[in-house]
Amino acid sequence: MLDHEVSRYLEAAREKHLAKLLELLRFPSIANVQDAADQCGPCAAWVAEYLTGLGLKADVLAGEGKPTVIANLDVSSDAPTLLIYGHYDVQPPDPLELWDSAPFDPVVRDGCIFARGASDNKGQFFAHMMAIEACQQTSSLPVNLKLLIEGEEEIGSPHLEGFMAAHADRLAADAAVISDSSFFADGVPSIIYALRGLVYVELTVTGPSCDVHSGQYGGVVRNPANALAAMVASMHDADGRVAIEGFYDDVVDVTDDERRTWGLLPFEEEQFAASLGVDTLAGGEDGYAVLERRWARPTLDCNGIVGGYTQAGSKTIIPAQASAKISMRLVANQDPEKITEAFKRFVAARTPPGVRSEVSVAAKARPVVLGRDSPTMRAAKAAMAEAFDAEVTLVRSGASIPVTELIQRLLGLDAAMMGFGLPGDGMHGPNERLKLDQLWRGSIASAAMMHNLGAQSAGE
Amino acid sequence: MLDHEVSRYLEAAREKHLAKLLELLRFPSIANVQDAADQCGPCAAWVAEYLTGLGLKADVLAGEGKPTVIANLDVSSDAPTLLIYGHYDVQPPDPLELWDSAPFDPVVRDGCIFARGASDNKGQFFAHMMAIEACQQTSSLPVNLKLLIEGEEEIGSPHLEGFMAAHADRLAADAAVISDSSFFADGVPSIIYALRGLVYVELTVTGPSCDVHSGQYGGVVRNPANALAAMVASMHDADGRVAIEGFYDDVVDVTDDERRTWGLLPFEEEQFAASLGVDTLAGGEDGYAVLERRWARPTLDCNGIVGGYTQAGSKTIIPAQASAKISMRLVANQDPEKITEAFKRFVAARTPPGVRSEVSVAAKARPVVLGRDSPTMRAAKAAMAEAFDAEVTLVRSGASIPVTELIQRLLGLDAAMMGFGLPGDGMHGPNERLKLDQLWRGSIASAAMMHNLGAQSAGE
Repeated sequence: MLDHEVSRYLEAAREKHLAKLLELLRFPSIANVQDAADQCGPCAAWVAEYLTGLGLKADVLAGEGKPTVIANLDVSSDAPTLLIYGHYDVQPPDPLELWDSAPFDPVVRDGCIFARGASDNKGQFFAHMMAIEACQQTSSLPVNLKLLIEGEEEIGSPHLEGFMAAHADRLAADAAVISDSSFFADGVPSIIYALRGLVYVELTVTGPSCDVHSGQYGGVVRNPANALAAMVASMHDADGRVAIEGFYDDVVDVTDDERRTWGLLPFEEEQFAASLGVDTLAGGEDGYAVLERRWARPTLDCNGIVGGYTQAGSKTIIPAQASAKISMRLVANQDPEKITEAFKRFVAARTPPGVRSEVSVAAKARPVVLGRDSPTMRAAKAAMAEAFDAEVTLVRSGASIPVTELIQRLLGLDAAMMGFGLPGDGMHGPNERLKLDQLWRGSIASAAMMHNLGAQSAGE
Repeated sequence: MLDHEVSRYLEAAREKHLAKLLELLRFPSIANVQDAADQCGPCAAWVAEYLTGLGLKADVLAGEGKPTVIANLDVSSDAPTLLIYGHYDVQPPDPLELWDSAPFDPVVRDGCIFARGASDNKGQFFAHMMAIEACQQTSSLPVNLKLLIEGEEEIGSPHLEGFMAAHADRLAADAAVISDSSFFADGVPSIIYALRGLVYVELTVTGPSCDVHSGQYGGVVRNPANALAAMVASMHDADGRVAIEGFYDDVVDVTDDERRTWGLLPFEEEQFAASLGVDTLAGGEDGYAVLERRWARPTLDCNGIVGGYTQAGSKTIIPAQASAKISMRLVANQDPEKITEAFKRFVAARTPPGVRSEVSVAAKARPVVLGRDSPTMRAAKAAMAEAFDAEVTLVRSGASIPVTELIQRLLGLDAAMMGFGLPGDGMHGPNERLKLDQLWRGSIASAAMMHNLGAQSAGE
């Protein structure tokens, strides 16, 4: 059980902590923005400065891509070392017109903070910083700390593997925690033990050297927008399976144990569909239950498509070009390299005469499955149960958090993915929010996790 | 033969005429622009004022949509009356980055005027105004004149039918001429005797109430962009035919005579493909020659497609919505109403569970076939042959000029479609241009056409 003094400190410090978090949320630290508009540098500097203020040794390390914040604090050579991961970069806020308040002008309303990054991920990693401060101020920090706060998670962490390999010594730890996820449901604290991987590509189809008149040339010039639509359509078969040759070769199927466990989770399909504004959950493969399709089956989605005339009214052209952003979520043991090559072969074989196609790769991440009964997992489960006063559920997630697999592969640690978000937080969408109660309890969970790790190490 | 005095006047007035045409080209009179940015009103006023200056009675008539300029000049109750059509509206200029000079800041370079609307259609209808001025100044106008200069051609003339029906008396004439097309090839003056019709629709597919995380929901939420791609793809079969049920029911096939005539035209497929920047002419139906597919077969093209994240970099979302602008070019005797209904039925039947679809209709125009041996056609052929000093070819066009069918149906006239543009003019694309020599000779053709009609009437 967590020291009462730490809890009391956290309760007393709420206003101060909230004010600092709102400061952090004001940075439009969008990873795919370049040049003058790039606010990742200032945001990273703010994080490092804040950690320095908490007594950590913190550095902003520049390199390829956005800067990374790395920090540490040693309390004792006998204490275990905990690595805490977070990312200060956020998703682009558009479509802006769907936000009720400005995405980078955070407001507190109805017990929630509304801002881009409130839940994903500034609010969640800030909960750990609140815990660190509380332990420091009450002289009760039971672990040595290492922090890794990156700035490219939302674009697939393209430079993180190189960074972590180069700084493996400085990141070495006994346990790791990642809070970048959500409860399975409101009131159901959850720890994630498997994530999907990702391949994110852009497919560009090019036809005539410029837009041409659809009357003069319709019927003789292959239309890149129609060709692209046909190519994207051909990526699924009639049963909702991805039709790329070899796509399923390495897929490990859901176990009977998982299938049974997931069947017991409090999940109402109709309610879930209604919460998303759709009348039925019709995406994905036939023959699999909803949670299996969400968590344990690979997918292919068009994240964006554009070509030709897209403003109001009509323009009668055959566009010179059309392109689609396509992401594939991968599951164990699909290999992003192999899938990328299979995708390229598929596209090359499906490009019709009269147009040219090109595939560029934006991001890759391997899928990961973590141990469900490690000491770290036990410490995290107990901490979450204590902070949220509820039984903790082990679940998978359909999302990709590249660092999880990198921590496993490069540092030899299965991180505890204990997230404080809620399904209704609107991560990646408009009106992203974080419930304040989740923030307060999240900070308690973080402190409890540190306490539990310290106790494990002391053999209590 | 045209009076030499008129030709001499036109030659002497070139600089003055060019300066006025450049003025006209400065109006960004884009028909699908609304509100403050709408420059159609000022452009229409300029046209009316210019016609008034030439001695015509000219009015700008407001109504639904953009204003229409209507003008007339009576020389004698014995003279035949010629109706001249033009449109002052232009296509949107985007993509702007592909223009070598600003689209609404006309420049003369290499013997051409570069500006949006230079060829389509300001330059071409201005050639008639040059001829009118020359005839007036030389006291040799052989016909009564009526002018109809509309402002919505590029959006399919949605209000023109109502307007022409309401003003049928004021538009009544003995002959009509439309110069809104191009030569078949450089040096091959052409008169068009058939045009394709048009149905222009927008198909919107809607899924979740906002963009959602493609990791969290990929595999369970039907993706509107993927669904749209599949729906658009299904609109063609493997042979390039439009797959909408009933689409070909009323199509009148190319005649043997036409097929034979077109086979004799100076047309090099490879050169034509190269001029468009494609390696092969692969659009349209299998089993038809290129000119048959361009002119006499119906088509379906995606003119624009958009959905989800379309800026630089990556964003992992399932978009809430995706939409496509789709135009169908129709041939005799397809009926736009029937085709629109068939399209709507097709879409309704192909909308998969989990998304909703909506079709809005932006424009409709009937296909038209004109007589090839009318007095008007003979007058036009002789005028073009004289002005351009070459044999005149009768051709079809794949484009749609709604007024042609309206003049036929509402006024009982088969207009002479004698265009002064060239295939390389880049109508609807970037760097649109008009060759000055085509403008000069076009004005002579117009004056000669008036002369020939006058002579026909006088029984010469």
